Amino acid sequence: MSWVLQGAPLDVTVSRLHGTSTGPRSIRKESWHLETFSVELLEDLQNVSFADIGDIELVPGDLPRSLDSIKAVSLNFFRRGLKVATLGGEHLVTLPVMEAVSQVYPDIAVIHLDAHADLRDRFRGAEESHATVMRRVAERCLADPSLLFQLGIRSASAEEYQWGRANTSFYPLELVPPLEKIISTLGQRPVYLSLDIDIIDPGEAPGTGTPEPCGFSAREVLHALSLMKDLRVIGFDIVEVSPPNDLNGITSVLAAGLIRECLILWGRENF
Amino acid sequence: MSWVLQGAPLDVTVSRLHGTSTGPRSIRKESWHLETFSVELLEDLQNVSFADIGDIELVPGDLPRSLDSIKAVSLNFFRRGLKVATLGGEHLVTLPVMEAVSQVYPDIAVIHLDAHADLRDRFRGAEESHATVMRRVAERCLADPSLLFQLGIRSASAEEYQWGRANTSFYPLELVPPLEKIISTLGQRPVYLSLDIDIIDPGEAPGTGTPEPCGFSAREVLHALSLMKDLRVIGFDIVEVSPPNDLNGITSVLAAGLIRECLILWGRENF
Amino acid sequence: MSWVLQGAPLDVTVSRLHGTSTGPRSIRKESWHLETFSVELLEDLQNVSFADIGDIELVPGDLPRSLDSIKAVSLNFFRRGLKVATLGGEHLVTLPVMEAVSQVYPDIAVIHLDAHADLRDRFRGAEESHATVMRRVAERCLADPSLLFQLGIRSASAEEYQWGRANTSFYPLELVPPLEKIISTLGQRPVYLSLDIDIIDPGEAPGTGTPEPCGFSAREVLHALSLMKDLRVIGFDIVEVSPPNDLNGITSVLAAGLIRECLILWGRENF
Amino acid sequence: MSWVLQGAPLDVTVSRLHGTSTGPRSIRKESWHLETFSVELLEDLQNVSFADIGDIELVPGDLPRSLDSIKAVSLNFFRRGLKVATLGGEHLVTLPVMEAVSQVYPDIAVIHLDAHADLRDRFRGAEESHATVMRRVAERCLADPSLLFQLGIRSASAEEYQWGRANTSFYPLELVPPLEKIISTLGQRPVYLSLDIDIIDPGEAPGTGTPEPCGFSAREVLHALSLMKDLRVIGFDIVEVSPPNDLNGITSVLAAGLIRECLILWGRENF
Amino acid sequence: MSWVLQGAPLDVTVSRLHGTSTGPRSIRKESWHLETFSVELLEDLQNVSFADIGDIELVPGDLPRSLDSIKAVSLNFFRRGLKVATLGGEHLVTLPVMEAVSQVYPDIAVIHLDAHADLRDRFRGAEESHATVMRRVAERCLADPSLLFQLGIRSASAEEYQWGRANTSFYPLELVPPLEKIISTLGQRPVYLSLDIDIIDPGEAPGTGTPEPCGFSAREVLHALSLMKDLRVIGFDIVEVSPPNDLNGITSVLAAGLIRECLILWGRENF
Amino acid sequence: MSWVLQGAPLDVTVSRLHGTSTGPRSIRKESWHLETFSVELLEDLQNVSFADIGDIELVPGDLPRSLDSIKAVSLNFFRRGLKVATLGGEHLVTLPVMEAVSQVYPDIAVIHLDAHADLRDRFRGAEESHATVMRRVAERCLADPSLLFQLGIRSASAEEYQWGRANTSFYPLELVPPLEKIISTLGQRPVYLSLDIDIIDPGEAPGTGTPEPCGFSAREVLHALSLMKDLRVIGFDIVEVSPPNDLNGITSVLAAGLIRECLILWGRENF
Repeated sequence: MSWVLQGAPLDVTVSRLHGTSTGPRSIRKESWHLETFSVELLEDLQNVSFADIGDIELVPGDLPRSLDSIKAVSLNFFRRGLKVATLGGEHLVTLPVMEAVSQVYPDIAVIHLDAHADLRDRFRGAEESHATVMRRVAERCLADPSLLFQLGIRSASAEEYQWGRANTSFYPLELVPPLEKIISTLGQRPVYLSLDIDIIDPGEAPGTGTPEPCGFSAREVLHALSLMKDLRVIGFDIVEVSPPNDLNGITSVLAAGLIRECLILWGRENF
Repeated sequence: MSWVLQGAPLDVTVSRLHGTSTGPRSIRKESWHLETFSVELLEDLQNVSFADIGDIELVPGDLPRSLDSIKAVSLNFFRRGLKVATLGGEHLVTLPVMEAVSQVYPDIAVIHLDAHADLRDRFRGAEESHATVMRRVAERCLADPSLLFQLGIRSASAEEYQWGRANTSFYPLELVPPLEKIISTLGQRPVYLSLDIDIIDPGEAPGTGTPEPCGFSAREVLHALSLMKDLRVIGFDIVEVSPPNDLNGITSVLAAGLIRECLILWGRENF
Repeated sequence: MSWVLQGAPLDVTVSRLHGTSTGPRSIRKESWHLETFSVELLEDLQNVSFADIGDIELVPGDLPRSLDSIKAVSLNFFRRGLKVATLGGEHLVTLPVMEAVSQVYPDIAVIHLDAHADLRDRFRGAEESHATVMRRVAERCLADPSLLFQLGIRSASAEEYQWGRANTSFYPLELVPPLEKIISTLGQRPVYLSLDIDIIDPGEAPGTGTPEPCGFSAREVLHALSLMKDLRVIGFDIVEVSPPNDLNGITSVLAAGLIRECLILWGRENF
Repeated sequence: MSWVLQGAPLDVTVSRLHGTSTGPRSIRKESWHLETFSVELLEDLQNVSFADIGDIELVPGDLPRSLDSIKAVSLNFFRRGLKVATLGGEHLVTLPVMEAVSQVYPDIAVIHLDAHADLRDRFRGAEESHATVMRRVAERCLADPSLLFQLGIRSASAEEYQWGRANTSFYPLELVPPLEKIISTLGQRPVYLSLDIDIIDPGEAPGTGTPEPCGFSAREVLHALSLMKDLRVIGFDIVEVSPPNDLNGITSVLAAGLIRECLILWGRENF
Repeated sequence: MSWVLQGAPLDVTVSRLHGTSTGPRSIRKESWHLETFSVELLEDLQNVSFADIGDIELVPGDLPRSLDSIKAVSLNFFRRGLKVATLGGEHLVTLPVMEAVSQVYPDIAVIHLDAHADLRDRFRGAEESHATVMRRVAERCLADPSLLFQLGIRSASAEEYQWGRANTSFYPLELVPPLEKIISTLGQRPVYLSLDIDIIDPGEAPGTGTPEPCGFSAREVLHALSLMKDLRVIGFDIVEVSPPNDLNGITSVLAAGLIRECLILWGRENF
Repeated sequence: MSWVLQGAPLDVTVSRLHGTSTGPRSIRKESWHLETFSVELLEDLQNVSFADIGDIELVPGDLPRSLDSIKAVSLNFFRRGLKVATLGGEHLVTLPVMEAVSQVYPDIAVIHLDAHADLRDRFRGAEESHATVMRRVAERCLADPSLLFQLGIRSASAEEYQWGRANTSFYPLELVPPLEKIISTLGQRPVYLSLDIDIIDPGEAPGTGTPEPCGFSAREVLHALSLMKDLRVIGFDIVEVSPPNDLNGITSVLAAGLIRECLILWGRENF
């Protein structure tokens, strides 16, 4: 089963600074300066079957049509039995991808690594927003809320915190300890990973839309990913890379490196 | 008759780099370093009656509601007999403002200063876009197309060029000579001015969304504005200032200076 | 007892690059993108009584008058029994604040978190400077030198090092271990915290006047602060944030986050 | 006769700041935001026959092999009767291109628009350098020195100035007046145009390796080019665009615009 | 009579953004990329007798001592019959230099080229400030107010405008026409030139503390300077270059170029 | 035995972004803001005998001559019994320095701290490149390959990885544990340290040519260096600092700090 990479340069509902629309392009550009071989995993990306289809064409100013496009393209791939890696763009792109996932894998579990809970009910009047995306995923049962594992969250409103506690599998401030427990329960259930780059500290990943202090190091996150190597991950996204706010491409190259590791981790032949 | 200043931080349909959403805030911030007195006009802004209402609240990701808000707020002011200055945001904000204008001033003339014709039929699939805005103004008869005066245009597709020639009062590459002729025909007809900051050369106004080489100097544009001093201008907008792409605030301070001159020009008591 | 926040945008005695004068404004601006709720402390800033009075008006070019203003404003608040949080500006602002503190709390202890000892006798001929501020605090007995706890210092001249060893409670390179000991001795003595943002590594806090390599992580500093939660902190400052040298606001948002945690830590009702 | 576009990302002999190696890529990227239609020339680039072959592969650190590659690729095109537009890269790329030109068009005339004379004998010990390129072109008779027309030069050492006066057709500080005279003498002689972007003022073209104050405006240069429309231009280069030192792509988009005008000017069917 | 160059890196009374303290260093650094020969004047700086003494040591935070130092150093040179070129730093450095000038040349005339009148009575409570410097020069009769020629001013408060009209030789918005008249009246009277880099448009000189739109081009200013070639200029300053706010050094290199022209203009042997 | 510091501003074979040519100058500039005293080592650099000879003059565009110069200058110093610290420039500068080292110290051991293995056979056709430098050092037996200790490498192609495993003492991903073992075997053998700044995470050292995610912290590297304090280090280099891609000088000041620690560690009198 092969991987498809798709760019989803959505940059519409942001609250602070625009810039994620060039994320996919920048990640690809910086990936040229990385080796295909992983010294960590001792495996070469050249042995993984994948194709990059480029960016999904979105309609500037027409959010519903843009989300529909992302959903339609994703669904097409999932239905053919392909795995899909989505490069954001803002975090709202996870919503249409999850709509596609849920049709093909109704028993999906979601592992959500993020600085922010993304559990608001509304954000500046909008129902569908980067700040509400996981609330919508849970409320619309695109995954069973108890199978929505939110790890490492370090920013939430009081209301979000309570809603997360009551509804999702909510593990603020912690990463590896709860992850180890979760992994042991998942068996061969299909898993979707949604990784907001701001899970990583702004010092290492400054190029993002809403930098939040006191994050994890990239090494901690990479270690967490490697723990998941035997899970049946059928899709993932890496979102909120914002190149105009970055320095010397370090956030883009970090995202590119994480994608390489993910593709190798979950792209082995027997998968 | 007093002036109202309103920010319209729309930044949705852009084709190149986002950034205009912080335009109004940045223009206000830089205005603090300008004098209120105009050495050019020998008049003080303190003698002009105006109020800044701040930014109109838009809904991120919901373009129709955002445009409706701009129209509703603008219409409220125009109906009360106030003059309205709109600080963009992207050029699409002119569309809902013109919808309001046309209801109160059906005989309005529009003077459009811009690097780009903004006369496309569609732009990346969208009907309402910064690149189609003047086509919509003309087609929807928000102003009589023959009273849509497009001056200084230096970028257009072949199709836009032909459409402009056939439908609007289209004066590419020239500014002052056609303006002088136009002014003499307008008498006391109400006039709306739409000024895209990219009419000015990127060297002087680098902080904009789609810089286009070989523009006019700010002094040429200021001179053109001063020629219009006896027109009955009932509203204007200055759009496409993009602070993240600017240097040392020079584009914002330029926009602030142009706004001061406009308010003084058309804010005299007897107006 | 409520908190007052005051900006002290002093930026005069700097040795390397100016920029701290816009620190308070930038910290406030970035604070809008943080939640008021602390996931770490499980408490909401909305439950803390505080007021932000804006920036103290300083006189450009007149350092004595500027320092006098900071002292006078601070003294007014301390005398009324209010707690004061000062947003720098350069580190010299701690001097007039400490002059005010010492009048109201003569038994004050000072906890000084910084990359630099700030114990020079003179700096470029000046007696009062960001590089001499803690020497002056100690010499003028604004706090008893033995109650001036200097933690985490990783940069000092040989002369400063010896002076610190001989006069203050000087703990270079270490943070949590000495802090735990100090806390146990302080009981209900009033405490003032002076936090130079450069205690944190330049990777996480690049926007500062004199970046010094090999600093602590923000998580380490936040942990240290949380250890102090039962101390009777009656004032604190966060200084040396320099927005023009920052990237994507990450240093300002970090300062804003630390301030939120401090206000929640020491703003509980029973305090 | 069709045009070939070739990138020559040489960035080796620079004296101040590197950066021209990304020039061709950046010019291409920004060209997507320009129309193909020229409002100035009322002609569409879509009617011009041309192909972009991408960047010539150079060997980092091996200048002789890199220059050989540029010469070989260029010669191949000129020999087939194609016209060649070269996107620099530093100005030294003109040397191998001229070596190719001179073999096919021994009677070539060169029009050199530049801030700098580029007539040094040696530069930091090197014989082949961006600062010596036109001296080499003249000395090696790649064009007859009297047919090397150097226009608009505003920077030269005393030695360069004298050498230029004595050997080339040297017109410092002036652009249009000498050009008009030159044009009238050239008839159907083949012409090569070498345009260093720093001929244009650093205000309009800041992204270049050695900005020189008091340059021409882009409009003046564009006007000069349009005067040359009946010349038999068989090749041109636009060099010294340095994107890392640019702002918001304005220098790259300016170069892209000039290239469009050149291709339209000299790409008409009957040429 | 030889020239002395002195840096005066004062950066204290600024209202907007600091940065001029590194002006002198940056101008020197960029000057290495300029030729010593002037293509405009056909003369080589190597034939001018001058020495650069580096930056005057200022005391951070102690404005009176800093101004005293500038005055003392300048006076020492003027008394020895040397001509002095001062590289700012902010415009307030002109005040102590003029105090020195007036002692040696009581009949001095001042030519002031600036965007701003600098005629405020007080600025943010300060009497001595970059915004009050020419008011102080006039009021303290460091030059006879009627011999204070203020040219090209395009920004002033109403109060400054009236004060200038009433007291100095005030020529707003114009440069060459009044200058030609003034020159004819000055004969061999000693002349001091104070050139604020913001006289030039922010497009060409963005790196300055208070950019003001609609300025002159560098070519216009250079032409104005060349008109003054027969005046007996005994000192000049170029101030308000702010490298941190600049792009690719273009403002610093422009200042360096103007200084070269000035030294050649007024450094000829017979002077 | 004293230390010599030499700058080697080579910036020729880079693959991504130029900029290392200004490394030495920037490191020196930032070093002025560091103390000479080391709080870590409790020793003052003023007690170490060293001289900075400035930058070695290289010939732009002539790589062989440039490498020869570096070798000749280095050899001269090593032959006189001096220790040599080289400030890069790109990593290829290690090649000529090692050619000099190997002539004077044929039994040299090399400790190589780097993100990248630098073991390619060819890089873009070039044999001598920053990406092949350690392959050349080993193949040309400038040090016995078994004495080439490569530590902390986190990026390599599959081919490089296998070659390193087979030929050098290759310790990927680890730093302190292998280093402790190595140290115990080296005794008084002369040691050369080659430190590529990208061994440190891009968050702390963003200003480098090829940032690679998931690096070590500066504190970890500093600790590793301190472990080597009793080794007989006779030379070291710190390379790949690229100031144009840095932020607020943090990478340069980090390099300066590491150099201070190295000079103190290996500059004690009895050495």
